[in-house]
Amino acid sequence: MSETKIRLYVDQPLGPGQAVRLSPEQTHYLTGVMRLAVGAQVLLFNGQDGEWRAALVETGRRGAIAVCDQLTRPLAMPPDLWLIFAPIKKARTDFIVEKAVELGVRRILPVQTRHTNSERIRQDRLQAHAVEAAEQCGATWVPEVAELQPLDKLLAPWPADRRLYWCDEAAAGAPAHITGDPGASAILIGPEGGFAETEAKRLRAMPGVTPLSLGPRILRADTAAVAAITLWQAACGDWR
Amino acid sequence: MSETKIRLYVDQPLGPGQAVRLSPEQTHYLTGVMRLAVGAQVLLFNGQDGEWRAALVETGRRGAIAVCDQLTRPLAMPPDLWLIFAPIKKARTDFIVEKAVELGVRRILPVQTRHTNSERIRQDRLQAHAVEAAEQCGATWVPEVAELQPLDKLLAPWPADRRLYWCDEAAAGAPAHITGDPGASAILIGPEGGFAETEAKRLRAMPGVTPLSLGPRILRADTAAVAAITLWQAACGDWR
Repeated sequence: MSETKIRLYVDQPLGPGQAVRLSPEQTHYLTGVMRLAVGAQVLLFNGQDGEWRAALVETGRRGAIAVCDQLTRPLAMPPDLWLIFAPIKKARTDFIVEKAVELGVRRILPVQTRHTNSERIRQDRLQAHAVEAAEQCGATWVPEVAELQPLDKLLAPWPADRRLYWCDEAAAGAPAHITGDPGASAILIGPEGGFAETEAKRLRAMPGVTPLSLGPRILRADTAAVAAITLWQAACGDWR
Repeated sequence: MSETKIRLYVDQPLGPGQAVRLSPEQTHYLTGVMRLAVGAQVLLFNGQDGEWRAALVETGRRGAIAVCDQLTRPLAMPPDLWLIFAPIKKARTDFIVEKAVELGVRRILPVQTRHTNSERIRQDRLQAHAVEAAEQCGATWVPEVAELQPLDKLLAPWPADRRLYWCDEAAAGAPAHITGDPGASAILIGPEGGFAETEAKRLRAMPGVTPLSLGPRILRADTAAVAAITLWQAACGDWR
């Protein structure tokens, strides 16, 4: 790590000479924790305008002000891949969100299945987690974390032009590869208890669904999410 | 999960009619936590004789006794893949070990690099973690977790017949695929601070080393470990 420049996500426009007011939390982090002073440089991104180098020009308690100087990286959106998963224990759900951002997905959709244990999620907390992961992994874009919704509802009007890779423990004989370029895609990871038979039946009957095998051992949901995104990214995403 | 039979690793021979004394901890788990009584069935494996169904015949405090009844799965060793990684924070190191067992590797080798933060590991704790992961993921074999050793020492007599996939953040232009069947392999994941230039130079000069790209974003070491094992398993391991 030759350069340890701090990256911050901001919800404001970025551009040449643009002044940006950072939040009190970001200001505390920069000045209190990292001991930066006026003149120090940070990197800012907002998910739209790429990554900008900016210099601190004011560090008051109401929020530091940074002025954009130079575009350091253009916006690079991840490929059009959604991750759909049934929330599990808090730490592992956080982990799934973090990993999905690092590996590169465009949307993260928590769903409730028949066998999902967790009945609610803190969407705002997970979204903040996604922002933090983006700050750390060098992404210039932050995937949206959707509110929890029933799987049935998400599938009801499933878009015909989006391939759904279904990681099913029971899908023996399914390929462990993604071939060709499916275009817009989604990966569906089941809950720890597996899919209910009614859910499996419905998925098997849907036209755009491809089962994906993830080996002979039983993967935890968080492992399965990372493995499936990896296979997709290497086959047809931005890892190529 | 139609069947929620408990799987336990034991360090004793298994075979038809074989009586096995379980540890006090396992006994407490079975009788105290899971409320099993004499007659209940469990699954046992020892990394050599496959998985056996066994019935509890005694549940005394000194350790329950289970008698093997039937072979439920033959031994299935994971393919000859080693995971080499620089330990990071405790929770993430635990995670790497857990995931490596689920995904399927034969050995787990923590190494000290120039930029490794963590100077010691609890090998016994990590090995216990590997056992637990094997119990939960249905593996019949438990990868050995080696003691921490310097990377230089591990590479000094690197076996000529083992391909080394080197996941290097700086390896721009390297393929994001593993092609062909390399046979015996190892995956090397760097520390969070990256490899030192002397280390990178040495790796670049070694004959059996192949750089592996894991996409345009910066992956944490634990994400990189899961992604790299996934690519190897899907290309030439037991996921095919």
